Amino acid sequence: PDEAAVEAVRTRDRQLTKPTGSLGRLEWIAEWLAAWQAKPTPSVDRPLVCVFAASHGVTAKGVSAFPSDVNRQMLENFAAGGAAINQICAAYGLGFKVFDLAIDMPTGDITEADAMDEKSCVATMAFGMEAIAGGTDLLAIGEMGIGNTTVAATIYTALYGGPAEHWVGRGTGVDDEGLKRKVAAVEAAIAHHSDTLKDPLEVLRRVGGREIAAMAGAILAARLQRIPVVLDGYVATAAAAILHAIHPSTIDHCIAGHLSAEGAHQDVLGRLGKIPLLALGMRLGEGSGAALAAGLVKAAAAVHRDMATFGQAGVSERLS
Amino acid sequence: PDEAAVEAVRTRDRQLTKPTGSLGRLEWIAEWLAAWQAKPTPSVDRPLVCVFAASHGVTAKGVSAFPSDVNRQMLENFAAGGAAINQICAAYGLGFKVFDLAIDMPTGDITEADAMDEKSCVATMAFGMEAIAGGTDLLAIGEMGIGNTTVAATIYTALYGGPAEHWVGRGTGVDDEGLKRKVAAVEAAIAHHSDTLKDPLEVLRRVGGREIAAMAGAILAARLQRIPVVLDGYVATAAAAILHAIHPSTIDHCIAGHLSAEGAHQDVLGRLGKIPLLALGMRLGEGSGAALAAGLVKAAAAVHRDMATFGQAGVSERLS
Repeated sequence: PDEAAVEAVRTRDRQLTKPTGSLGRLEWIAEWLAAWQAKPTPSVDRPLVCVFAASHGVTAKGVSAFPSDVNRQMLENFAAGGAAINQICAAYGLGFKVFDLAIDMPTGDITEADAMDEKSCVATMAFGMEAIAGGTDLLAIGEMGIGNTTVAATIYTALYGGPAEHWVGRGTGVDDEGLKRKVAAVEAAIAHHSDTLKDPLEVLRRVGGREIAAMAGAILAARLQRIPVVLDGYVATAAAAILHAIHPSTIDHCIAGHLSAEGAHQDVLGRLGKIPLLALGMRLGEGSGAALAAGLVKAAAAVHRDMATFGQAGVSERLS
Repeated sequence: PDEAAVEAVRTRDRQLTKPTGSLGRLEWIAEWLAAWQAKPTPSVDRPLVCVFAASHGVTAKGVSAFPSDVNRQMLENFAAGGAAINQICAAYGLGFKVFDLAIDMPTGDITEADAMDEKSCVATMAFGMEAIAGGTDLLAIGEMGIGNTTVAATIYTALYGGPAEHWVGRGTGVDDEGLKRKVAAVEAAIAHHSDTLKDPLEVLRRVGGREIAAMAGAILAARLQRIPVVLDGYVATAAAAILHAIHPSTIDHCIAGHLSAEGAHQDVLGRLGKIPLLALGMRLGEGSGAALAAGLVKAAAAVHRDMATFGQAGVSERLS
């Protein structure tokens, strides 16, 4: 973080026509942007929502309420502008890109095989790193992939331990039987890979998914390119959790856009030390919570940059 | 509320390309808009933020960290586009109007006199009712008035009882001595007016303020004109609390935009049965929290209106 930039934001903030501290987290957002953009006047002029889409072999175990056909259908829906995320991006003037991570080629079924081989995992991370090459000053990341709440729950179980039930939720809305199948799939995956789950990157490769690998790459690339990151919900946070397990500082430039309705998300965010900006009971994925939060971040940047100072506006300062 | 319009929203929502319920409060917002706009397809095409500004005689008791000169100076800042609320409205495309409620003529000092006489109180409510005559489909209300967190705390003490300390907070940021003066002012006002505080409208007239009377008028007018309302923080909620004390249904068309950092706001919202959309630690007033929430409401309406259905997008529905 650029402490000088943060200090510049604080100095200007004290001169703006409002009581110091009265904008709460909006003030904190301006400081966070400055710290990771390394700019005394942070900007959100080119915000970008990136959605990473992948297919999962574990869907063979009946872990989702929707068929895997939905992956390709939703890519087409994104392209046609018909998804929820399209409307949110339009409402807030956010750029939007979707990345198809070999969506017609599912990863291995994690209950009995590795999700990815070494080469594929590395290539997918690298692809995620390239995703922001077009330039942006605020990156919101999200995902699409039938079955990926099961994958995320497996990652959390591998990283943090505890019973699978604790980490498994209803995702897109499985019934009680589906929930049992999800728990069983997570338990089977943990048992199958139990010898190698101490290494976070092996967790990613063995029980993760391509969208999670790509998001991990995008988060790292954003850090190197001085781009603050807004995380979406339960699945996107799994990419951050992998990096955090490698070293906590790797996600210091990330904020949690929202608290998902998927029950264990709050536990994960607590472990990562992230306080979500929004808590609206959402559990859609596709970057929807991150994009709403990006709308707030955009407003916070505009407030900091464009407000008048006491001197400019001729407003009396506080009584001493 | 228009139950047929709500049912139309629910029917469409079930057809949209997402799991039912996955957008959490965004779905609820669409239903709320439909209920109070009485339209099967709710719209937020002309959102409007109205800020009501007034001066308070109780500032003579040293209850604020800022001088009352700030009232007029901030009106000029609003007009010049330099305040926080101007930037938020610009970021989200919200209309913005400020109403000067005889700002150079403070109300009576509530610790020893009535804030308003009968005629002035009624006229100010009527003025607030006229505020939305230009038309809007979503009204966010806020206020500006040095000293008005003391007035709001007095209203809450009058309506709900309990010690003044419970309702008094630091407002724009008074020090410990200022906080004591605020508590003393509330206690003095309650003692002076104790014989007439059973009638909510008398509470408004005797220990309220012009911006609070005007906001109460605006809320009522919005109800009559089928305009959903987003309340700002601690002070704006006092106008809703007066109406709620007259009859709870009078504020059914209002949502709480945010939870203020002013400590007792959560208690008030609980009494009014309102769950705030945002909780960002803000305590600025001037409609800032309501305007941020209006940005969310705008996005929620766009999501509901513009998303594709499963049929339109050719996306498979959930497995039965």
